[in-house]
Amino acid sequence: MSSLVQDALAHATTALLTADLGLAEKVIQEDATIDTIQHELDARTINLMARQQPVASDLRALVSSLRMSADLERMGDLADHIAKLARKRFPGTAVPPELALTIDEMGRTAGKIIAKMSSVIEHRDIARALEIEADDDEMDVLHRKIITTLLADDWGYGVETAIDMTLLARFYERCADHAVSIARRVYFLVTGEYAAPRA
Amino acid sequence: MSSLVQDALAHATTALLTADLGLAEKVIQEDATIDTIQHELDARTINLMARQQPVASDLRALVSSLRMSADLERMGDLADHIAKLARKRFPGTAVPPELALTIDEMGRTAGKIIAKMSSVIEHRDIARALEIEADDDEMDVLHRKIITTLLADDWGYGVETAIDMTLLARFYERCADHAVSIARRVYFLVTGEYAAPRA
Repeated sequence: MSSLVQDALAHATTALLTADLGLAEKVIQEDATIDTIQHELDARTINLMARQQPVASDLRALVSSLRMSADLERMGDLADHIAKLARKRFPGTAVPPELALTIDEMGRTAGKIIAKMSSVIEHRDIARALEIEADDDEMDVLHRKIITTLLADDWGYGVETAIDMTLLARFYERCADHAVSIARRVYFLVTGEYAAPRA
Repeated sequence: MSSLVQDALAHATTALLTADLGLAEKVIQEDATIDTIQHELDARTINLMARQQPVASDLRALVSSLRMSADLERMGDLADHIAKLARKRFPGTAVPPELALTIDEMGRTAGKIIAKMSSVIEHRDIARALEIEADDDEMDVLHRKIITTLLADDWGYGVETAIDMTLLARFYERCADHAVSIARRVYFLVTGEYAAPRA
């Protein structure tokens, strides 16, 4: 799921910035695959709960699996929303040239966060789980940069583009939030403690 | 949790429309209460899973409880976001007079949906679970009405207010989505079938 989500977000960003309708359609179609994997994964998790009667840390891991699959499914939805906006504005682009670089950075920052999150899930890599907190701060900086640009006196793209950019910035930021949430769950599973709140 | 969420959203809407700073602060503070209840509820749910070793429908109900508490917690966050926007724009109001009625309707529609959702949770009221789907369609109509107003040639409130309204409309809509999701989970628990998709 995490690698499909990573691809979906990267492709959605490319589709958005290059007005690639085919790629946008691909992301939109493949969201159903992510949903299907979630349903199968959750069914297996619940089946294990019923058959193995787990307690303590095994049960906590299974409960965390249900929560993480919900986060990943939602991240897929957010990539789908980005792709749908790319499709809606085709053959134009939703993102004006002045903001293309910042959206590209948001996409790359989200990609970096998701890649680290995958490593946290796969290898229970606690050091990386803590790095994600700082990466998420970068995302917040990029988000504020977008809003500052929209509010500048020389904003020349009107309200529709401002609405698009407001939603896009939020989709990337929420996607990162879900990745942070997953990293924190793994951190808790491994250490039994909550990750230190960000400074 | 559902009655606290219902109050939080109603108070956030009033704070927003009447620039009531004290009420906005109250909603923001009480979000922590909703989060605490979620943690306690989930701890009890996981404890039941470990001690009672439930299978079949009992296990499904407990898993659904974990998912519904996550939806309710997120609904509380969305009310908190609305209250924070009211606070940010104080002593002004985020909502221009032309849109106050529509935001008020979004708040009332969300309140109606949350009240029905509470009844669905408490009484496993399946008929009401189906009604919520239609109520959510009303919410989508109100959302489109907001966006149409923002895009009209005579929109005279500039980009900052357009950004505020875009996010507000999304917060109300997402809140309703989570309530729909909870109603569908209860429907599935009671009937073993998924609620019919909306026409």
